[in-house]
Amino acid sequence: MDNKISFIESPTIEMVKGFHSNGVAAGIKKEGVLDLGVVLADVDCIGTGMFTTNKVKAAPVLVCKKNVKNKIRAVVVNSGNANACTGNLGLEDAYNTCKECSELFNIPTDSVLPMSTGVIGQRLPFNAISSGLSKIAKIINEQNPNNFAKAIMTTDTRMKIYGVTVKNKDQEYHIVGVAKGSGMIHPNMATTLSFLFTDAKISKKALEKAFRAAVEKSFNSITVDGDMSTNDSTFLISSGLAGNKEISGNGDDYRLFAKAVEITACTMAKSIVQDGEGATKLVEIYVKNAKTEKEAKQVAMSVATSCLVKTAFYGEDANFGRILCAVGYCGVDFKPTKLKLYFDNLLLFKNGEPTSFNEAEAAQILKKDSFKVIIDLDKGSKSWSVWTSDLSHEYVRINADYRS
Amino acid sequence: MDNKISFIESPTIEMVKGFHSNGVAAGIKKEGVLDLGVVLADVDCIGTGMFTTNKVKAAPVLVCKKNVKNKIRAVVVNSGNANACTGNLGLEDAYNTCKECSELFNIPTDSVLPMSTGVIGQRLPFNAISSGLSKIAKIINEQNPNNFAKAIMTTDTRMKIYGVTVKNKDQEYHIVGVAKGSGMIHPNMATTLSFLFTDAKISKKALEKAFRAAVEKSFNSITVDGDMSTNDSTFLISSGLAGNKEISGNGDDYRLFAKAVEITACTMAKSIVQDGEGATKLVEIYVKNAKTEKEAKQVAMSVATSCLVKTAFYGEDANFGRILCAVGYCGVDFKPTKLKLYFDNLLLFKNGEPTSFNEAEAAQILKKDSFKVIIDLDKGSKSWSVWTSDLSHEYVRINADYRS
Repeated sequence: MDNKISFIESPTIEMVKGFHSNGVAAGIKKEGVLDLGVVLADVDCIGTGMFTTNKVKAAPVLVCKKNVKNKIRAVVVNSGNANACTGNLGLEDAYNTCKECSELFNIPTDSVLPMSTGVIGQRLPFNAISSGLSKIAKIINEQNPNNFAKAIMTTDTRMKIYGVTVKNKDQEYHIVGVAKGSGMIHPNMATTLSFLFTDAKISKKALEKAFRAAVEKSFNSITVDGDMSTNDSTFLISSGLAGNKEISGNGDDYRLFAKAVEITACTMAKSIVQDGEGATKLVEIYVKNAKTEKEAKQVAMSVATSCLVKTAFYGEDANFGRILCAVGYCGVDFKPTKLKLYFDNLLLFKNGEPTSFNEAEAAQILKKDSFKVIIDLDKGSKSWSVWTSDLSHEYVRINADYRS
Repeated sequence: MDNKISFIESPTIEMVKGFHSNGVAAGIKKEGVLDLGVVLADVDCIGTGMFTTNKVKAAPVLVCKKNVKNKIRAVVVNSGNANACTGNLGLEDAYNTCKECSELFNIPTDSVLPMSTGVIGQRLPFNAISSGLSKIAKIINEQNPNNFAKAIMTTDTRMKIYGVTVKNKDQEYHIVGVAKGSGMIHPNMATTLSFLFTDAKISKKALEKAFRAAVEKSFNSITVDGDMSTNDSTFLISSGLAGNKEISGNGDDYRLFAKAVEITACTMAKSIVQDGEGATKLVEIYVKNAKTEKEAKQVAMSVATSCLVKTAFYGEDANFGRILCAVGYCGVDFKPTKLKLYFDNLLLFKNGEPTSFNEAEAAQILKKDSFKVIIDLDKGSKSWSVWTSDLSHEYVRINADYRS
């Protein structure tokens, strides 16, 4: 990590100059918990977003894809209902959410990014949204214990807010990211919902470039259950109020910004896996000495999504054969006799057969909350990491009962 | 089903002219259960096989790929150990198994098809194999309650043996298939282990053609957990002793044979899913009105492998949004507004939004042991069915503890 970049200990959205936020219990969820949140910007922001590549896109995704091209003034998110597979009425609800924000906060309708997460295929309870927004309008400038981050949670067990301060020469800016996600996690050019806010002054082009690279390394490199949601979206929004010299092009300032965004996004992405539905472990699948980054990722993803690998992690069983099996069927060419497989630093397999490794030592590694599986393909110099969770009884319990 | 084809009520391998079989507890598995089986042919047989496309192929797969081209006299299968990821020593063990059979049964070494199934990455206990084969040699001609079918089981809860009798004019022949499989089921140009035996006289070319088509519709259209094994293999072996006129080419006789093979293979394949690890339900995902069979299968497979869909089936939750989500990310182009989704005959979704279907009625369908999800893409006239199971607590339990 660059020594100019430091994590913020207890980040809030308000630490990023120009942003306010709050959340309320609008009654969308039955439990009376926070379920509607707004981030409001004092000034016109520039932003960039990446969205699910699922053919079935939720109504708010369609609206955000349009609006993210405009000057941005607000983000509004509800949990408890995904507003997906809801047809024209769903689209109307998403647009009406923007309209309500426009009136309440006196900002252009098309400067609002609406987003929804929760059950698919049920109509948004618009009355709840509407009265919730009125409540938020009254408290948007108040201090709050990260109510926005809490309001966007679904099966998450903890809120996810991370941030960094970047100090460069005599200038300073912030990046704070908020995410939700626990299941239906297998992003592709997007993620489950996440929002990064920065006050760095930066050109739109540089913002987009840095974000695209960071998302590929972070949200596009995690999996919980192999299911890509209909609502996956991620945004980076800048108020430009930090007072720094505008960042553009390819210089050191750009690289520092890009690195800071990547660090924030990776921290957020890993926290999503760590809080994966029923997850008890965070496992990094690190594939090295591949010919291309693409094939390294393909191998890592295949291992990371295998139900059998993930149940073996849960059972703390050093069943490395299942890992080799998942490498074998992923479609990447390699020589099984050249492959090496490690758990952390313990070599388990080489020359086409198991080493005489110590089973107890392997079991010790698997008992940890977090460890690394290293797969050396011995065919090139490229590498990639994917983060995955284990597959537990709790995952089945959560998802068998989700709607009831 | 063609009225010339009828299921055999309690099929045995011995009903197919020219074949004998038996199995013993050789001590490969700890539990003292049947774990080694042999099928011996009285005459030189023709055969055809399809194998896992996993890059990591078990040693016996490599040997079978060679030997299946020869005249075939015996099949030898052990459970409890997959002889996969075992390097050159594993290959030696597989060849030595053939050699032992050759000596004991007085047949050519290269006429033996060896196969293994069980834990990956551990050396085959060859002493157990060797003494087990000697025992089998003494009892191979004895009547037995399908000991071969029992000896090849791993996490299977029941043996899988199915057969048909084909009556054509004044001729009659049989097809009997034996399979094992319960987990690591997601075949591709192969399946978990299965063996079909027939006494039909048929040309090798016609045998291969009929088998290829049947495997695509059966073993290549099932999934339990999305993991393709290192050992997947399926064989069709003919003694040609039925006394029928040799089947060849494309005539009615060929089509009848092909249909009979398809029926047998589909029955076997469905029984594998029904006995899927932890499975409580057998669900057919039927995609219709697609442009090509390939895309119909791609859509069906995506739904059939989704962890979230499978846990919803387990929870008997009519969470149809997860099905639409899995259709959406599978890579096939379609218009969400034109898609129709049914559970059995109940229409749940059309025109881009849910119908006002009766939740109780949907729940009633999901409570059944077996039901159909129908996805109408409304873009062509092709269809495909894939069979899948639900994802249960029991699946996690079985696979977290597999090696212990």
